[in-house]
Amino acid sequence: MPLNEFDIIQRYFSDLTDSRSDTLQGIGDDCALLQPRQDQLLAVSTDTLVAGRHFFPNASPQCIGFKSLAVNLSDLAAMGAEPAWVSLALTLPEVDENWLQQFSLGFSELAKQYKLQLIGGDLTQGPLSITVTIHGYVDPKKVLKRQGARVGDLVCVSGKLGNAALALQYLNDSRPVDQVLLDALQKPQPRIALGLELRGVATSCIDLSDGLISDLGHICGASGCMAVIDLLKLPCDDEVSRQIDETNSWLIPLTGGDDYELCFTLNPDNLAILSEFSTKTGVAVTVIGEIKAGSGVVCLDQDKKPLEITSSGYMHFS
Amino acid sequence: MPLNEFDIIQRYFSDLTDSRSDTLQGIGDDCALLQPRQDQLLAVSTDTLVAGRHFFPNASPQCIGFKSLAVNLSDLAAMGAEPAWVSLALTLPEVDENWLQQFSLGFSELAKQYKLQLIGGDLTQGPLSITVTIHGYVDPKKVLKRQGARVGDLVCVSGKLGNAALALQYLNDSRPVDQVLLDALQKPQPRIALGLELRGVATSCIDLSDGLISDLGHICGASGCMAVIDLLKLPCDDEVSRQIDETNSWLIPLTGGDDYELCFTLNPDNLAILSEFSTKTGVAVTVIGEIKAGSGVVCLDQDKKPLEITSSGYMHFS
Repeated sequence: MPLNEFDIIQRYFSDLTDSRSDTLQGIGDDCALLQPRQDQLLAVSTDTLVAGRHFFPNASPQCIGFKSLAVNLSDLAAMGAEPAWVSLALTLPEVDENWLQQFSLGFSELAKQYKLQLIGGDLTQGPLSITVTIHGYVDPKKVLKRQGARVGDLVCVSGKLGNAALALQYLNDSRPVDQVLLDALQKPQPRIALGLELRGVATSCIDLSDGLISDLGHICGASGCMAVIDLLKLPCDDEVSRQIDETNSWLIPLTGGDDYELCFTLNPDNLAILSEFSTKTGVAVTVIGEIKAGSGVVCLDQDKKPLEITSSGYMHFS
Repeated sequence: MPLNEFDIIQRYFSDLTDSRSDTLQGIGDDCALLQPRQDQLLAVSTDTLVAGRHFFPNASPQCIGFKSLAVNLSDLAAMGAEPAWVSLALTLPEVDENWLQQFSLGFSELAKQYKLQLIGGDLTQGPLSITVTIHGYVDPKKVLKRQGARVGDLVCVSGKLGNAALALQYLNDSRPVDQVLLDALQKPQPRIALGLELRGVATSCIDLSDGLISDLGHICGASGCMAVIDLLKLPCDDEVSRQIDETNSWLIPLTGGDDYELCFTLNPDNLAILSEFSTKTGVAVTVIGEIKAGSGVVCLDQDKKPLEITSSGYMHFS
């Protein structure tokens, strides 16, 4: 006899259902009941991962569990929000206890790290997909938005760019992929700690899910400005740099998706404090360009000439 | 060129994105930003509908849109909550503008009726499924829960039972289905208005999604009591009554899913006020039994003998 929904939650997710002080009712009724803190805003985001589209159908369930939460946490990070609650809607072809065990390991690893309470969701039978809705707190006076970049601001990114996209390309080409690239694709680290530090300091922020050009373009669009990027400053690991040299193309770090790094703008007066944040959070931060008057994203090559972009970043419908 | 996510929201859902006074940021950034009322709790629920499982793959997209929101609204109704915000995660095999147009018509019909703001979601490519997360307000002193039924309380249900399950059975048997049954299956009316009236009056409440025996069983389990149901009092339309007579089986109204009616318990002293609620909301309410000391659900037949139930209500994993 297959397990029912209650058994599955009890068996695999019970360590995520402990009640927070601001939860009046978790799993177990028709709705969860939350009593959000009064001095904070509630930040809410939803993302779906579909087998064969966002991960290989035979991907490790542990990595799928990790990533399905990581991409949602990354949205909270981009607003400078503190994680609080999560709902998990899981659609599975069949009840596979081993798969569930592994999935819950990956999901729980991040949920515990960020003190998220699982407050609900749904378990349905069908083609494998995962929809996560996440709730976090953010200070209304310090919330990070796409809007707010100003002429003269520096453009910054966390971590390294292009590793996930290169890993995906190698996997699609059946080439060997080293662990650094694979981890970037399968277990992206949401930049929650950095997002919290950036509150009230960064003038705008977004997370890089669809590629730098596309996502930084959203900051420019919302802020009514232009971003000028110095390609030589893009933070890339050796493998990505080698690929850029070999192909003479910057498409991987510029338009590759799935980086889940933060891209933000900053008044140059705050540059000093940025290295403190980097030290404190253990996340590298790199200045890659500047905000100017105008619109869109311009990339300057080694000769300071604008690069022609022939293919845009991943657009949803993705 | 396919439409991107932003185009689709703009084209089909723009009338649902108007900002409420308690919304600081709707669609358009990494998260929505909500400022929930301070004297209320936030009720949150998530449900997924999967093609081929929760609706026929060739079902009318308008009905799919309607039902995907109706089942979530029904969860709010069961808590006595007032609808506020909704997120929509839509996975589609392809961008089909006609399908989207029809889906959004059904979804919007209910969303507008209940003044829901669409605050986010995700649009992905894959096998058709819909996950909706809904947020509503509920008074902390008057919230309806599964827990709270007391010995001597009356057991009540709204509307009629079994229509949706019988419609599904007829469709599976390729038999003709009349409009009343079909509407019950495809366009269930969430009992929001009744739920709001029941706040502070009903001692417990649940919505009927998995069948009366199963769902009333949850009230009994949470409240530590037994429910004794008088089968002759079950409110059934003619077609369901005829089917009961023909098959000599009560399985359809007792264990059929998808009713989305409210099942609740009430102190007998409040019986008079119940008919006022019924008149006010236009929803029939029927007393079908009583809460006793014990556990589980017992159904008495015309001779007041307990009925043997050979098949339980729909359990998730569904």
